[in-house]
Amino acid sequence: MLVILISRYKLGRSVSLISSDIGSQGAGHMAKPGKDTGAAAGKERLLETARRLFLRHGASNVGINDVTNAAGVAKMTLYNNFASKEALTVAVYEEMASLTLQALKRARSGSKTEEGRIEAIFDLFGAATGNSDYRGCPFIHASLQEAQPEGPLYSLVQAYKKELRAHILAALEEERSVRSELADQILMLLDGAVTEAYIKGVADPINVAKRAVAALMRCGA
Amino acid sequence: MLVILISRYKLGRSVSLISSDIGSQGAGHMAKPGKDTGAAAGKERLLETARRLFLRHGASNVGINDVTNAAGVAKMTLYNNFASKEALTVAVYEEMASLTLQALKRARSGSKTEEGRIEAIFDLFGAATGNSDYRGCPFIHASLQEAQPEGPLYSLVQAYKKELRAHILAALEEERSVRSELADQILMLLDGAVTEAYIKGVADPINVAKRAVAALMRCGA
Repeated sequence: MLVILISRYKLGRSVSLISSDIGSQGAGHMAKPGKDTGAAAGKERLLETARRLFLRHGASNVGINDVTNAAGVAKMTLYNNFASKEALTVAVYEEMASLTLQALKRARSGSKTEEGRIEAIFDLFGAATGNSDYRGCPFIHASLQEAQPEGPLYSLVQAYKKELRAHILAALEEERSVRSELADQILMLLDGAVTEAYIKGVADPINVAKRAVAALMRCGA
Repeated sequence: MLVILISRYKLGRSVSLISSDIGSQGAGHMAKPGKDTGAAAGKERLLETARRLFLRHGASNVGINDVTNAAGVAKMTLYNNFASKEALTVAVYEEMASLTLQALKRARSGSKTEEGRIEAIFDLFGAATGNSDYRGCPFIHASLQEAQPEGPLYSLVQAYKKELRAHILAALEEERSVRSELADQILMLLDGAVTEAYIKGVADPINVAKRAVAALMRCGA
């Protein structure tokens, strides 16, 4: 499902984000001024600037002018690439979803054991939540940024969470007994942990969640 | 902590919300026109209207004019009672937090067993998530509605989540071994479940979470 959504926005640049960038404000990933000027560079710069501002302030608190000013591009450059703020917002979240899911795939391929693969998924998100200005799962937040839960942003978040669940399920041993419910429970602990990381009602939430996951894998329902 | 926050806004009416109202749009709880006209009625009507609109559309998508129009009161009535939209928003979330925590206390007092008390807390939130237009935990969403995580709304959400955790801890048997981490894990599963209830990547998320909690209580870390 996400593939369909993501294919609408083609990644036009080489992507080398490391795990700690996911969910962070992406500082240091502003488009560099240089040879690659022109329309493609303007679009790239707009996407990276918007991502950084959305993650730090929430998409609903960021206006079109904030993005063009911070990116240092003309307003026409924005409207030549994106029909509206909603179109820009969807493109930003599509790119983030794509990068996050690629990083997830790499993270879980690094371990031969079920426990190790699940741990790697939590650690990937843990690296993002460790950022001092981490503001919780950007996808969860994006899902309320539409006035009605029917628009493309909500569909994108639904698709992203389904893919995330599929990665968790793929990380579990298929030969073991029913794992579908365990995947759901791990997804909930992950969503709860990144939320607590922002609200900070819990010490070291990712590790607290990892210990719950280990207990559930040992003797869960 | 929340007590301090909540005491700033005195509940001026008899409160008889049932569990299913928490997190729902509060339909049927509009202030009734009648004898209690005047300033107090105007304030009450504004708070109830704002709560209903915020829950359905997200506070950031609702303007001052939307609230006064839907409440049928003059703009002056709003500004006589609340200094700004932020002040109205904080008052709405303070009242919701107070009502939710009162309902939590009632819910967990109904059972003599640890398992029963924890189940009652999940069922309280489950009743709210069952609403067809439930849009996830309003407190989690509110925490991103400020452009910087420093304002009163963020503090309120922090205080609310701490109180929620304290209720979970109080529902557990004190004589059992260390329960603090279990309380954290139950809070994460609860936050994850209400999120999944909105995003709908998981069938029947509250019951999936309840089974994880039961497993953790049986043989957790």
